[in-house]
Amino acid sequence: MGVTQELASFVAGLYYDDLPPAAVHEAKRCLLDWIGNALGGSRDEPVDLLLATLEELGGTPQASVVGRSIRTSLTHAALLNGYLSHVLDFDDTLTDTVLHPTSPVMPALVALAERDGASGRDLITAFVAGFEVEARLAQAIFPSHYEAGWHITGTAGAVGAAAAASRLLGLDPQRTLWALGIGATQPTGLREHFGTMTKALHPGRAAGNGLLATLLAQRGFTAAEASLEGPNGFLRAMAAEADLGVLTRGLGQDYLICTNGYKPYACGVVNHPIIDGAIHLRNTYGISPEQVDAIEVRASDRPPIPQLAANPDPQTGLSGKFSLAHCAAVGLVDGVALPAQFTDARVRDPQVAALRRRFRVTLHPTVRETEAYVTAVLKDGRRLEVHIPHATGTQANPMSDAALEAKYRGQAGAALPPEQVDAIARLVWDLETLADLRDLAGRWS
Amino acid sequence: MGVTQELASFVAGLYYDDLPPAAVHEAKRCLLDWIGNALGGSRDEPVDLLLATLEELGGTPQASVVGRSIRTSLTHAALLNGYLSHVLDFDDTLTDTVLHPTSPVMPALVALAERDGASGRDLITAFVAGFEVEARLAQAIFPSHYEAGWHITGTAGAVGAAAAASRLLGLDPQRTLWALGIGATQPTGLREHFGTMTKALHPGRAAGNGLLATLLAQRGFTAAEASLEGPNGFLRAMAAEADLGVLTRGLGQDYLICTNGYKPYACGVVNHPIIDGAIHLRNTYGISPEQVDAIEVRASDRPPIPQLAANPDPQTGLSGKFSLAHCAAVGLVDGVALPAQFTDARVRDPQVAALRRRFRVTLHPTVRETEAYVTAVLKDGRRLEVHIPHATGTQANPMSDAALEAKYRGQAGAALPPEQVDAIARLVWDLETLADLRDLAGRWS
Repeated sequence: MGVTQELASFVAGLYYDDLPPAAVHEAKRCLLDWIGNALGGSRDEPVDLLLATLEELGGTPQASVVGRSIRTSLTHAALLNGYLSHVLDFDDTLTDTVLHPTSPVMPALVALAERDGASGRDLITAFVAGFEVEARLAQAIFPSHYEAGWHITGTAGAVGAAAAASRLLGLDPQRTLWALGIGATQPTGLREHFGTMTKALHPGRAAGNGLLATLLAQRGFTAAEASLEGPNGFLRAMAAEADLGVLTRGLGQDYLICTNGYKPYACGVVNHPIIDGAIHLRNTYGISPEQVDAIEVRASDRPPIPQLAANPDPQTGLSGKFSLAHCAAVGLVDGVALPAQFTDARVRDPQVAALRRRFRVTLHPTVRETEAYVTAVLKDGRRLEVHIPHATGTQANPMSDAALEAKYRGQAGAALPPEQVDAIARLVWDLETLADLRDLAGRWS
Repeated sequence: MGVTQELASFVAGLYYDDLPPAAVHEAKRCLLDWIGNALGGSRDEPVDLLLATLEELGGTPQASVVGRSIRTSLTHAALLNGYLSHVLDFDDTLTDTVLHPTSPVMPALVALAERDGASGRDLITAFVAGFEVEARLAQAIFPSHYEAGWHITGTAGAVGAAAAASRLLGLDPQRTLWALGIGATQPTGLREHFGTMTKALHPGRAAGNGLLATLLAQRGFTAAEASLEGPNGFLRAMAAEADLGVLTRGLGQDYLICTNGYKPYACGVVNHPIIDGAIHLRNTYGISPEQVDAIEVRASDRPPIPQLAANPDPQTGLSGKFSLAHCAAVGLVDGVALPAQFTDARVRDPQVAALRRRFRVTLHPTVRETEAYVTAVLKDGRRLEVHIPHATGTQANPMSDAALEAKYRGQAGAALPPEQVDAIARLVWDLETLADLRDLAGRWS
């Protein structure tokens, strides 16, 4: 049996009762975080452009768009919701492959689940199936795939979306195999587009493409038997070096969803330990920006950190996400690094800009990517230092359920009335008892 | 100015009066051949599956589907028409890159042209713009891209579709640049799917993705400035070796559309010189199958010919397209190699199968891919030989307008009433005088 067939068999044969409780719980965390991120991103400017384009194309009203009072076709809903959930760079991340696992998979899944009135348990099972497939596929092609310029979330993600959708529809192993193949033949995402509106199109397209793949396979639309490992398949086309073994290693035993990471801050994960340190110093010592003579940081020298270190004075909110100096400054001034810290206005704030100019960083090969040493040098001569061994949100220092819910509430509260914010949180934490996903989806749109 | 910008400037600045008459004429040949191929493919089984899936998703009725009396959204029409036009493996080919240039571009273009009532001249200009971009992009990444497993028609094709659509909508160079980039980030097509229903999805998706790219760019949706040549751009992700210079070489001077090839036979071009030879022997000497003791062929040894040589007794119509023996046999028995020669029934015909068993092939490095030596050894001892230096339909031995129209009529005649078949041919040959593409599109659906 080839690896694509093994994956298809795993997907088609996964049941809720197979799942360890930790995987079930993590799936709920993924969903709650996803809803918050999608609500947070739902009013971003490029979303309006995408929405207007798709509305002109039209579609059967089958599924909702998060944070918008519209319904559209399954594939357009998946595309839009995939876009929303990534546009703020606030979505969950597997740090070993920089895959954002939920953004391409959940939108495909909730669109189908809403149309069919699927149960919470079926949603959880299908989501875990998709997660395990895409996470292994990402591991199989990382790092050469990513280094060649691919945005892994839009490539491995399409296969994950197809897997999840296939499980929710209860496709047999043969049709699941076809769905994985049709998903694999439609990768999206060149990293050249980072910093433009096109970046978030990658998980959006992955969600829509994976879903279309599954809808076709359900009808008997055929595809290759060995779409991943075949001589002209995904692995060879997509990676100079691929690890075939990792695709099925521990399948059904080791649930990679239990290694998922969440972002407390609305920027790339490599900034996070520095922000952690800045916030810690601010809160522990009650530092105010006027007291600070310099912020000194020791961080990892691994890519892309040198680029972020070489961006000391960004002038746009988007560029601020890619500046260690800006991240440290807002951590110290604001004590948070939410979307509001990455607006054009906040980046141009004189106090923040002044603090950025007092930022000094040295990069070291012995410091890990999720680690940082942060020192505030005060004008009175004191040196206040903190070592962050593991950034908040990583597997070794996870965000608690309470922290994750607070993040969700921060984003949801700006988009929905309080009673809906509460109801969604309640429904998600009790997802295994939800009879019909429409009860949840009806509250986020 | 980077190469992507140069391409965008070329596209945005191309006018009908710039085009040499040969390029205009070739665009008409592309269109006529495309309509025939799309009509020929319009009733294939996988088309029904794709159509049913898309109809459930729904869409604003903006454009027609060839050979079907339905209208759907621009992007669904592009996807469907892209599928139709490739499903019989009968579409035009640039032999140097095996790009099928018209199948991804024309569907995007006619959908827009139908919505907007564009003129024939504008259609021609936009088509040439798209053709020149995709053909150069294919040259830049061939052969390493193709050898890695990519179906170049679905990858370079999406960028060509975006270019053509951008020209038809009159986008400025900046928005055209974004459209090219959004097209480039959505490649479709692993060759692993050859021989399955998914193969023709590649030009279909390329057409739809390129069109969506343009619709987004038109609204101001931003993308990278150097989406092709940038460090994380298309060329690096898609090819182990890319030739940057070829992307803009001779742009606006050498029209690659004038090198386009057309298929007289409904199978891969590498079979064509053998079929030419078999038909020649049959017609010149009045050979009947019972007279034949053996068919001996000398052909090129370049991939994929060895695989086609190693398939002496196919059992399905699709597999027959990938068998030199079957192609030679139907050439000798039927004197044609149309879709009817690649059905399951024809492949299983006892007379054809018996002749396949009398097929002998030797492969030589000195024989070109478009060349073959074909000998009929008769039971009476005679050896009748023919050398085909250039297969019919290649640049050195082009199909005449009359031959192309006969091919069109063969396919169109099975799908449309005679007066519509005539009217379409007349409108296409006089395309530069057509005021509104709806007069043409109204006759093919």
